[in-house]
Amino acid sequence: MAKPRVVILGGGFGGMAAAKALGKDADITVVDRHNFQTFLPLLYQVSTAGLAADHVAYPIRGALRSFNGQFRMGSPISLDHKNRTVKLDSSEVLPFDHLIVALGSVTADFGTPGVDEYALGMKSIHEALMIRADVMRRFEDLCRFEDDTRFGIAVVGGGPTGVEMAGALAELVRGPLMNDQKHAAKHIDISLLEAGPRLLPMFSPSLSEKTKVSLEKLGVRVLVNTAVKEVAPRKLLLRDGSTLASEVTVWAAGVKGSPALERLSLPLDGTRLKVAPTLEVENYPNIWGIGDLAGAKSKDGRFLPMVAPVAMQQGRFIAAQILRRAKGAELKEFHYKDKGSMATIGRHKAVVEVKKIRFSGYPAWATWLFLHLFYLMGGRNRIGTIADWLWNYFTFDRGNRHIMDSM
Amino acid sequence: MAKPRVVILGGGFGGMAAAKALGKDADITVVDRHNFQTFLPLLYQVSTAGLAADHVAYPIRGALRSFNGQFRMGSPISLDHKNRTVKLDSSEVLPFDHLIVALGSVTADFGTPGVDEYALGMKSIHEALMIRADVMRRFEDLCRFEDDTRFGIAVVGGGPTGVEMAGALAELVRGPLMNDQKHAAKHIDISLLEAGPRLLPMFSPSLSEKTKVSLEKLGVRVLVNTAVKEVAPRKLLLRDGSTLASEVTVWAAGVKGSPALERLSLPLDGTRLKVAPTLEVENYPNIWGIGDLAGAKSKDGRFLPMVAPVAMQQGRFIAAQILRRAKGAELKEFHYKDKGSMATIGRHKAVVEVKKIRFSGYPAWATWLFLHLFYLMGGRNRIGTIADWLWNYFTFDRGNRHIMDSM
Repeated sequence: MAKPRVVILGGGFGGMAAAKALGKDADITVVDRHNFQTFLPLLYQVSTAGLAADHVAYPIRGALRSFNGQFRMGSPISLDHKNRTVKLDSSEVLPFDHLIVALGSVTADFGTPGVDEYALGMKSIHEALMIRADVMRRFEDLCRFEDDTRFGIAVVGGGPTGVEMAGALAELVRGPLMNDQKHAAKHIDISLLEAGPRLLPMFSPSLSEKTKVSLEKLGVRVLVNTAVKEVAPRKLLLRDGSTLASEVTVWAAGVKGSPALERLSLPLDGTRLKVAPTLEVENYPNIWGIGDLAGAKSKDGRFLPMVAPVAMQQGRFIAAQILRRAKGAELKEFHYKDKGSMATIGRHKAVVEVKKIRFSGYPAWATWLFLHLFYLMGGRNRIGTIADWLWNYFTFDRGNRHIMDSM
Repeated sequence: MAKPRVVILGGGFGGMAAAKALGKDADITVVDRHNFQTFLPLLYQVSTAGLAADHVAYPIRGALRSFNGQFRMGSPISLDHKNRTVKLDSSEVLPFDHLIVALGSVTADFGTPGVDEYALGMKSIHEALMIRADVMRRFEDLCRFEDDTRFGIAVVGGGPTGVEMAGALAELVRGPLMNDQKHAAKHIDISLLEAGPRLLPMFSPSLSEKTKVSLEKLGVRVLVNTAVKEVAPRKLLLRDGSTLASEVTVWAAGVKGSPALERLSLPLDGTRLKVAPTLEVENYPNIWGIGDLAGAKSKDGRFLPMVAPVAMQQGRFIAAQILRRAKGAELKEFHYKDKGSMATIGRHKAVVEVKKIRFSGYPAWATWLFLHLFYLMGGRNRIGTIADWLWNYFTFDRGNRHIMDSM
């Protein structure tokens, strides 16, 4: 029996999990616009000088070697359903028996003006290095002044991404920058804005409150019930008519399905791909959707969260579905096993919630640390990350605060 | 006695050596257009995916902390000799008792047309990441082709920089890229061009020959007596009228004193600062020149080589000179202690020449490794570099082959 030809659009958590689970059982080609997978959960540490940029990236070809998987750098531009091919922006046409659409998500501005122009998202290494450079450059500007000029950084969005970013920024300012130049570091204001009534809405209210208190202890101004109407140069216009000074605005308010999906002319459910409970695209046999852009739903009819564990479970599940179909067996329905949520706030500070179990502080922080190292792809990145983390932990320093966006 | 105010223009090997040697004995302000020092001798490993970019950079403020040295990010735009101040591009005016000019060097094209437009230099992390991205992107292009399309990389300049670059490129192609996709890797041609009759002209002819043989064994086409007339898109025009296909051209043919020097209206000797044997600028007391841009000469009247050991020895020497003057003692003359030259070619392959002692192969490679780790600034970079190197050494892989120049 010939191996099925499987083309996987997107080399993120979902796509790579599917590729690895299929392994030698299929002829795999992964397509991605980058030649590396980005470990998004640690991107905020690149933004805040805690990790080297190269440590949160892993070459896709390296991950595909063990089973001779192919890779193409590029983006899909159209699908030919009759001939079952996908065309890439390089003009190459790839034939497939199965197509896995795993293109992930992009920053969602929810129609807020100015986000594209004046805010930085948290979806790519490029953006992370721009945030790092912007923060460090403003800090260097402040170092020249001996007056009361202040420098505002605003993080918009009180979910785990925003919380982790705000906490890491606060520790960067309170630690390394304070040691670099005290006067300047004391004139930096970090705000975290959340439109809803509390931080981390997917956690229980007690952990939300603990998170708020921890961030405030680190010097972060936490503003809940605070919606952003517009991002303008050097400031935010808020829904209540007031303004907030912000030289650097980080937009962590949410994500939406990748717009690359639109070119594929597949049925959508909002910005997500319309998939059956089998994760097959409705009416398109052998085309599958996984991860952030797939509109898979939980039992209560709500979209599954756009997080790495969903994508990884779906990736492995899809691999099994494809092999089931190859054997003529019946498809199964996907059910997400929620292993809980966690967010780190800073040194020895994190929150973890697994069903009814909730904990915070040191044990939560240790759990977070262990799981992130465990899920980090590739031995080299793990070694490098441990090295950077040990250094930061024992010296209270951050060694990567370089401004690398210019010549 | 008040401490002398010392402004150091340039945070490279020379400037930072001077700052550290002066330490608490002076009020130090270092000025650099980057907020980090670049470890230039290992830049070629960033270009060839062997080292993370952040590992060859070190925050200048971190190095100045122990003695409360100040830092300003920027470039000098003018000198006011009457008031003894230097003006920066931020408009800030810094008063000084002593000024150390240590602005380093930039890529020299020797009037060759097209170098700026179509070649990449080896003087900044930005350029190193561009070389890495260009090489990896062309490799990805080749991976789509199943025909005989070839991809040429030319390194111009047969000094240590060019030799190390060509050797590291060859190992990247023969190892990781061959494992990634054999057909593509086999269609990459690496050439090393040297205008003179042999590689590494500062070494003895026997080591030059060994270097050539080693590089050729790695698959590098070594072209001596080959001068480049012009760099054009996708090719080089050679002095003898022939052309050489080159999609990526790395220009390692030489450096010259930084053009930032011209704005200071100080006496020049060619593109270098005219300094006395005391390293004081002639007729400008308390203004000192060190490193690549200083026109210090050896006993035979030739300029000293533009290498890190000269700059570091001069930096420490200048610190002593400034303290001598503060005490009213007589200045001394600088004499460069040549500790020898070395260049690495690849795994277990290097050449070392210390006066009459010459060795190559494994012992030279081990010496090179040890000295570079020893001179690497900062514990974090040393740990990270060891981690990357051990990984590369034992896996024959290179984990940093990411294309990071775009969104």
